[in-house]
Amino acid sequence: MNAEIISVGTELLLGQVVNTDAAIVAQALSGLGINLLYSAVVGDNADRLRHAVDTAISRSDLLIMTGGLGPTTDDLTKETTAAAAGKKLVLHEESLRRIENYFNEKHVSENQAKQAWLPEGCTVLQNDNGTAPGCAFQAENGCTIIMLPGPPSELTPMLHNYAVPYLAKGQEAVIVSHNIHIYGRGEAPVAQMMDDLMDGENPTLAPYAKEGECLLRVTAKAPTAQEADRMCQPLIEEIRRRLGDFVYSIDIGTLEELVVAQLQKQGKKLACAESCTGGLLAKRITDVPGSSSVFDMGCVTYANAAKEALLGVPQEILAQHGAVSEETARAMAEGIVKRSGAHIGVGITGIAGPDGGTEEKPVGLIYIALSDGKETWVTKRSPIGRTKSRAWHRHCAASQALDMVRRYLGGMPVVADYANTKQK
Amino acid sequence: MNAEIISVGTELLLGQVVNTDAAIVAQALSGLGINLLYSAVVGDNADRLRHAVDTAISRSDLLIMTGGLGPTTDDLTKETTAAAAGKKLVLHEESLRRIENYFNEKHVSENQAKQAWLPEGCTVLQNDNGTAPGCAFQAENGCTIIMLPGPPSELTPMLHNYAVPYLAKGQEAVIVSHNIHIYGRGEAPVAQMMDDLMDGENPTLAPYAKEGECLLRVTAKAPTAQEADRMCQPLIEEIRRRLGDFVYSIDIGTLEELVVAQLQKQGKKLACAESCTGGLLAKRITDVPGSSSVFDMGCVTYANAAKEALLGVPQEILAQHGAVSEETARAMAEGIVKRSGAHIGVGITGIAGPDGGTEEKPVGLIYIALSDGKETWVTKRSPIGRTKSRAWHRHCAASQALDMVRRYLGGMPVVADYANTKQK
Repeated sequence: MNAEIISVGTELLLGQVVNTDAAIVAQALSGLGINLLYSAVVGDNADRLRHAVDTAISRSDLLIMTGGLGPTTDDLTKETTAAAAGKKLVLHEESLRRIENYFNEKHVSENQAKQAWLPEGCTVLQNDNGTAPGCAFQAENGCTIIMLPGPPSELTPMLHNYAVPYLAKGQEAVIVSHNIHIYGRGEAPVAQMMDDLMDGENPTLAPYAKEGECLLRVTAKAPTAQEADRMCQPLIEEIRRRLGDFVYSIDIGTLEELVVAQLQKQGKKLACAESCTGGLLAKRITDVPGSSSVFDMGCVTYANAAKEALLGVPQEILAQHGAVSEETARAMAEGIVKRSGAHIGVGITGIAGPDGGTEEKPVGLIYIALSDGKETWVTKRSPIGRTKSRAWHRHCAASQALDMVRRYLGGMPVVADYANTKQK
Repeated sequence: MNAEIISVGTELLLGQVVNTDAAIVAQALSGLGINLLYSAVVGDNADRLRHAVDTAISRSDLLIMTGGLGPTTDDLTKETTAAAAGKKLVLHEESLRRIENYFNEKHVSENQAKQAWLPEGCTVLQNDNGTAPGCAFQAENGCTIIMLPGPPSELTPMLHNYAVPYLAKGQEAVIVSHNIHIYGRGEAPVAQMMDDLMDGENPTLAPYAKEGECLLRVTAKAPTAQEADRMCQPLIEEIRRRLGDFVYSIDIGTLEELVVAQLQKQGKKLACAESCTGGLLAKRITDVPGSSSVFDMGCVTYANAAKEALLGVPQEILAQHGAVSEETARAMAEGIVKRSGAHIGVGITGIAGPDGGTEEKPVGLIYIALSDGKETWVTKRSPIGRTKSRAWHRHCAASQALDMVRRYLGGMPVVADYANTKQK
């Protein structure tokens, strides 16, 4: 089955909005084993839209339209697409009632009501997060057409809850993917290590870079999800064998989610003391719902005086070794454990840039310490290769801290021989 | 001048990568006053790519290709596009030397060298951030073709430093935009207030929603940038007059950048005490380079014990009013001022969800306090309308805290009648 996407909206052509809809739909199609051959953006212009829809209907088995279903006059998708497919628009009473309920009004404006007019005979895809319903129907030549609203918060649930099940009914094969998340080894060396595994056709294996991390995706196609899943497992095992404890999870997408789950399982608490990451580590931990059960406190100590006052970092250490040093990171981690009573404390200090670097202590030099009150471990990140941004250094330092916590909780060596990091 | 973009790459059709390149190029074209009529994605397939390029060259004055310039065999853009335009590829010696220098090798592999083969007679756009050069040239029918590398970190500087100047030479008009950033009023009421100003053709006015904020964009077209800028000013003044101190900046894109600049100018320091935002406010402040001159410390106090120990919040207040209360927010702000010695302290406490809400204290209820050691102000955010995410509540609470700091430093009333917020 060959598909294409047409995304409608002048704001996309002006670059005011990035077309995330196309990527979201493309992923879903890929998961269904449907080949996407084209993806296009057209502005709110009836002639050019009609031309694009005509071309798509004539050459593809499936056309997915995103955007342009709303109440305003420049929302042209439904009228134009229905006309191209040889369908009239008819009023869908239930959708009108949903719109009335949404606004809590008996009679909504004509513009709002316009959204309830849908191609005759279509399957209505209800909008649980907005007013414009979507729909699925067949053009006269047999091409399946699906229309979805533009806002990703409306499109995503409609796609997964209604459009994908509609499409899955017609599919003979199911595609299952598993993501193997890796911290401490880059995409290039990982790809090289897996070179002999990359030629497979079913399952397939592909590497992806992720900010400061990388992942391997294993994908299999089979008549059932169980069967496809079963086909992935030997490859996943082989990858785990080769990468060892650099694999931090299968399908759990972030280090913070994994660490919060580990802490919850073990009934342990974490506290953090941050200098150059400035609250980013605490923010990432508390991004995870339910993190309050494992996280009581964090201190952002930018100034030396704050490191002394809040964490009890001895003035001599700051004077002798400087704020950016192994010794200060160690004292910060030990200080926050003492201060918070948590099982594990993390201390991070370094130079995130863009200014403040010296030859001896360049931008990107960051020390990360983990203490359990008895023992303390420190890793050092050194800037290697091309200049990276402030945001990059901060993100990677927080990730490395989380990885050290993961290793500690998992009973592995806390200090790995991280790539791009000198071991301490 | 009518333009179109073709982005090349199977990873885009699989939804593994969002097509940010198209948005970056579209914005630049919009700034040049060039109309973008189509934007398409094609996979790494020679036949479909050739067909798309042929169509584009025949109907557009300018074609911008992104991606597919790299060293591997599935990088087809140059060969295919040059053939469609009737051009041969020839070796560009200087580009080859740049690639050799990049790898610090005298003889690079054939694959790497392939990147230095460019259409005969083209203007080479050098890559300051990678190996594959871009280029600009004319097809036989006069269509201008520009090829840019796929990675945004390479495409963006090449576009702005080399491709835009190349295109600007041929343009008669310049487009200038100014963004008016607003906190405390939503997109819909702002659009309504500006309804009579929206019909203008030059300058134009358009509203945009931004996470928890909104902005108005004023755009003018004129023979020179100075002239276009001059045309924007009366409209900006009128908008400022209508919105008053809800306008927080012209062209400074984030509240944190603005607040750090204000603090630096006034030689003042800020400290923050965060519960439900969990470090996000400190993280946003320290996102700004140079923030260390205005920010010494922050405390993330998730647990009541941490609020007592680090901030000195009296146990009676926590017992009597609860951690989520005006009184606790007030005590947190006053506590962090005392603890840090900063001029201004902010305290945030609330329920970010998704769990933990009650009928009396629902998810989304957040108190934000600002203290200068003498006086303390508190605002209360109440959940209104549709359910929002944990990330949304946290982001908006941090934004509101920053807006209160902006107001305090600007000598405005610290507590505005924020939309979606009950005044205290």
